[in-house]
Amino acid sequence: MIIVLKEKTLSKQVKDLVNLLSQTGCQTSIFQENGRRYLRLNGCTICEAEEYVKDFNCIESMVFSPYPFEMASRSFKKKKTEFLVKKVRIGGSKIVMAAGPCAVEDRETLFRIARDVKSAGADILRGGAYKPRSSPYSFQGLEKEGLKILSEVGSLVDMPVITEVIDQYSIETVASYSDIIQVGARNMQNFRLLKELGQVRNPVLLKRGMSATIEEWLMAAEYILAEGNGKVILCERGIRTFEKYTRNTLDLSAVPVASGLSHLPVFVDPSHGTGRWKYVKPMSMASLAAGADGLVVEVHVTPEKALCDGEQSLLPEKFAEMMSSLKKVALTLDRTL
Amino acid sequence: MIIVLKEKTLSKQVKDLVNLLSQTGCQTSIFQENGRRYLRLNGCTICEAEEYVKDFNCIESMVFSPYPFEMASRSFKKKKTEFLVKKVRIGGSKIVMAAGPCAVEDRETLFRIARDVKSAGADILRGGAYKPRSSPYSFQGLEKEGLKILSEVGSLVDMPVITEVIDQYSIETVASYSDIIQVGARNMQNFRLLKELGQVRNPVLLKRGMSATIEEWLMAAEYILAEGNGKVILCERGIRTFEKYTRNTLDLSAVPVASGLSHLPVFVDPSHGTGRWKYVKPMSMASLAAGADGLVVEVHVTPEKALCDGEQSLLPEKFAEMMSSLKKVALTLDRTL
Amino acid sequence: MIIVLKEKTLSKQVKDLVNLLSQTGCQTSIFQENGRRYLRLNGCTICEAEEYVKDFNCIESMVFSPYPFEMASRSFKKKKTEFLVKKVRIGGSKIVMAAGPCAVEDRETLFRIARDVKSAGADILRGGAYKPRSSPYSFQGLEKEGLKILSEVGSLVDMPVITEVIDQYSIETVASYSDIIQVGARNMQNFRLLKELGQVRNPVLLKRGMSATIEEWLMAAEYILAEGNGKVILCERGIRTFEKYTRNTLDLSAVPVASGLSHLPVFVDPSHGTGRWKYVKPMSMASLAAGADGLVVEVHVTPEKALCDGEQSLLPEKFAEMMSSLKKVALTLDRTL
Amino acid sequence: MIIVLKEKTLSKQVKDLVNLLSQTGCQTSIFQENGRRYLRLNGCTICEAEEYVKDFNCIESMVFSPYPFEMASRSFKKKKTEFLVKKVRIGGSKIVMAAGPCAVEDRETLFRIARDVKSAGADILRGGAYKPRSSPYSFQGLEKEGLKILSEVGSLVDMPVITEVIDQYSIETVASYSDIIQVGARNMQNFRLLKELGQVRNPVLLKRGMSATIEEWLMAAEYILAEGNGKVILCERGIRTFEKYTRNTLDLSAVPVASGLSHLPVFVDPSHGTGRWKYVKPMSMASLAAGADGLVVEVHVTPEKALCDGEQSLLPEKFAEMMSSLKKVALTLDRTL
Repeated sequence: MIIVLKEKTLSKQVKDLVNLLSQTGCQTSIFQENGRRYLRLNGCTICEAEEYVKDFNCIESMVFSPYPFEMASRSFKKKKTEFLVKKVRIGGSKIVMAAGPCAVEDRETLFRIARDVKSAGADILRGGAYKPRSSPYSFQGLEKEGLKILSEVGSLVDMPVITEVIDQYSIETVASYSDIIQVGARNMQNFRLLKELGQVRNPVLLKRGMSATIEEWLMAAEYILAEGNGKVILCERGIRTFEKYTRNTLDLSAVPVASGLSHLPVFVDPSHGTGRWKYVKPMSMASLAAGADGLVVEVHVTPEKALCDGEQSLLPEKFAEMMSSLKKVALTLDRTL
Repeated sequence: MIIVLKEKTLSKQVKDLVNLLSQTGCQTSIFQENGRRYLRLNGCTICEAEEYVKDFNCIESMVFSPYPFEMASRSFKKKKTEFLVKKVRIGGSKIVMAAGPCAVEDRETLFRIARDVKSAGADILRGGAYKPRSSPYSFQGLEKEGLKILSEVGSLVDMPVITEVIDQYSIETVASYSDIIQVGARNMQNFRLLKELGQVRNPVLLKRGMSATIEEWLMAAEYILAEGNGKVILCERGIRTFEKYTRNTLDLSAVPVASGLSHLPVFVDPSHGTGRWKYVKPMSMASLAAGADGLVVEVHVTPEKALCDGEQSLLPEKFAEMMSSLKKVALTLDRTL
Repeated sequence: MIIVLKEKTLSKQVKDLVNLLSQTGCQTSIFQENGRRYLRLNGCTICEAEEYVKDFNCIESMVFSPYPFEMASRSFKKKKTEFLVKKVRIGGSKIVMAAGPCAVEDRETLFRIARDVKSAGADILRGGAYKPRSSPYSFQGLEKEGLKILSEVGSLVDMPVITEVIDQYSIETVASYSDIIQVGARNMQNFRLLKELGQVRNPVLLKRGMSATIEEWLMAAEYILAEGNGKVILCERGIRTFEKYTRNTLDLSAVPVASGLSHLPVFVDPSHGTGRWKYVKPMSMASLAAGADGLVVEVHVTPEKALCDGEQSLLPEKFAEMMSSLKKVALTLDRTL
Repeated sequence: MIIVLKEKTLSKQVKDLVNLLSQTGCQTSIFQENGRRYLRLNGCTICEAEEYVKDFNCIESMVFSPYPFEMASRSFKKKKTEFLVKKVRIGGSKIVMAAGPCAVEDRETLFRIARDVKSAGADILRGGAYKPRSSPYSFQGLEKEGLKILSEVGSLVDMPVITEVIDQYSIETVASYSDIIQVGARNMQNFRLLKELGQVRNPVLLKRGMSATIEEWLMAAEYILAEGNGKVILCERGIRTFEKYTRNTLDLSAVPVASGLSHLPVFVDPSHGTGRWKYVKPMSMASLAAGADGLVVEVHVTPEKALCDGEQSLLPEKFAEMMSSLKKVALTLDRTL
């Protein structure tokens, strides 16, 4: 249960309220978002809580979620969360397109890709600097050098950038070079990482874990929200099933389900979701039609030479062609791209 | 490997060819589709077969499929399979909409639903007469009585009808009342049923099994095709995974994958795929955008009283509203609905 | 809810009871097992039913199951179901071993295998005559000819036999040649087949479907029980998951779970469960330790030439060696083999 | 490919070899285990490598793995890995039993549990101090305080202890209090954590990820081995499937499969694997019979009051009873417990 405090509530009043509640055996935690304070209660029923606080006039409302996630739920916030990343609005009626290579390989290649996706209409440049790989012997990314290249190329083409963080050590570094921080599927339940990302200012794109239920995914978002970072983007990227013709099974129903349960913007990554470039266009079209607020797509100028995920990367010309089809679909949905 | 025989090949020539091949240890089976004859070979390599038959001038072409399915593959037939069910064209540029209740309950209810979905633009009327149910104690359908009602109401509203067959005994009866015969997910690998459906004239809508790979699904279609019935419609209806917020996980990637591998039309059933009526519209939109050739949707006038699947049935007014959105999406895809 | 009638209840009394109950809106169905009659009620609460029938003195007890299956549940029958197949006792303290080839290939081969498994201590001879195969072009079994060979060889070595039935048409034939009738994983929800098997006298071994929950499996058994055939053996044979090193994922927890929920004997098929002969011994050992009442194992004299499933078939000498290890494990469990 | 260097190889010789190999474009990395040095090669074929190094007499052997894991494979080390944790031998013929509560709750409770499991024959005391929980609002463990209690109680009852590490920050602390360090299922692909654990001296128990293939699990072990820590224990704890009667699906086939592919000891956690205390005994029995080298079992004096996982915790008396049954099974396997 969450108590929403009135805007001008004094710290003294909050303290009194917390004291009172803790005397009743009800645990509380305070958090703040956009200058407003909230109290989360644990260990008491709604009826009890309402009884306890009825004489406090600093309370604006009390929110109860029928789900285990609270701050991520539509009960807490009815309107879709919207925010700006540089000039790009996330969660608005314009559908957001993030595109770029699996990994930052070198400055030249990234620049060529960035220029191409930008001119085709992409909003955000993606590229991995730290790569979580199944094998310790595979290419692990250019790390800090990759971050620098990404940031520099992003500035050159005037696009905000997104890249993945794979441990707590490098959060600060990644946060200083990248506009949005991505949490990969394998780290979706790395709770320490999530908690620390709750304390940075950068928006976080949270990929759904390979075998995570939608509820666990929203609980992972809750970890970030509960620490005070409200700028979380959910990203469906396929779940693991028995099917072999695709790398993962893209669970597009997760888009309307998560959008119904939560106010957080929902993106889709059809590149990892299918693992084959030729299915990226139809599944991008489908993602938009299912209600996605954005897409993350892998593009490479020479997919056959890419250091990772070449099989699922689109050539820039295919990407451009896809963009023009996607724009038409967006219009029928009363959105733009 | 399949040998396509020239149109005017004499039976004598076919016989000679079969004899020759069997002497080499190569097994053959003959089948016929649209008046043309084919020979399927087993147990010899392409090179051997080419050598054996090189002097026969009744051979038009030889087809080799890189997949275990042959007649269902694009190697065998490059163009999408198209056919008419009464006046409704399946597999053409017009996307086909089948709608109706989970089960035929009574004449009045079915007629009201039929009239409503017809006026909203549906092409085909669906309704179950034989219901495969997990529990022996649940409503099992009106059986033959249901078939009669379905057929009669279909005539009244001038729509072809589709219903499920659940065993071999009733194939003949179902075939005489229903324009299209549906094979449910639980029967996708009921191979005897498939073989017998290969010998009827009605088109067959083949639902994907709950845990069937796309390859197994196409092999199930092969069973029907190999017996001479080329009018098979594939229908994705969700696979079983760990996710709970939806009844099944609708695998929309199966649409472009199956359409790439096979010439058979691909439909989607978003009602079973999601199990919740409120996700039917977004997933129907997504199905079209992913390239589906048709949809099968459950509609009921009083879902809360439906004898089965009420939770996933749309009210007629919701269905009509969905149809107008779907028509707009179809147009951006250069198709109609 | 099930009403257990006293042994000497007259038909007239049953009729009166049914009439009374149907007047109250409560649906009833009568079934008989081992000469005793039962009434299953649908559509009334326990309290109502108890009220209605309180004046009838032909009622021995009323059974309510907290699960959707009733006759298959431990609430209905506390003691493990036991029965004889020729001289072999199923469900007793002796663990039962069924062994033999995937398919009956010819008389000689089957006889050699039968003699070998018999002398190693197997109780029942298995062999497929009708084979459900993913591909219409694969070997489909010797059919009736195979049944005859199986039955004949079984007599020669004095072992009861088990084989699979794959459609309703052949139930009668299979029932006349085979002591136990097997329902394969793909047919676990072929409800018509189950209903008809409820009317034969042969015991039925019901394999768990590839993606069936334990509850669905018990409901499938319920279909057979509800028609009057109480001799059902449950058989776990692996479920479909993402893991590749094994053909299926053998879910051994299903053994204690099903044994806890149901009185039916539970067997395990480690051959299909793993798909590799070298894992058959450890998983057979584990099956016993988990509480299995029997095993079904594939054995072949020349696995590399077997017409199906050679990869998962044990050589007779490996089988014999496994048997001696299994016997030791059985003893520690206070059972024999 | 791995080059095993002779025991007395001089650093100079190693340097020359590395230089030569790198001139040919072949990447090398050196690692050391038990005082012996190895070279891992990347980017050249076996033939090339053999040609390059043929004149070097410091080479003892060259090892090629047919799998993506190399150091974890049986090709690299034929014999099962054995090591001591205090006086407990892991990987030997004695099966190792780790037992204790899900979480360390307080000194008294832990001491009572420890004394009980010790007297029933357990070898290692388990207890969580850092708990990864789906919800940010659930009990997260006593953290450092919990470590102290665990270590102290371990000393009192003279048992080595095991606890989970959930991030890199706390590795050093955990390593100083706990004899064995556990990596939980959710962190199985937290590659940074694995790399750092490759540099500690403590053995690492690596749980299989919820949706990890056996190959990915062994690759995760490879991350630790490749950094120089050879004391890795694999632990199967159930994978995620559609089945609901158990919390996870314990994949016992993973025991013989992993034991065949790798020389690392394989443990099983039947408590998480089933999620219900009453299935812990049968699945423990089955684990031993399948060839497990050890078990990790949750035990609590008051399961109904446990701060986590009470449903799957055994009472000490049930644990003791289970131990005596397990001992008998161990003997039939020519092992002890």
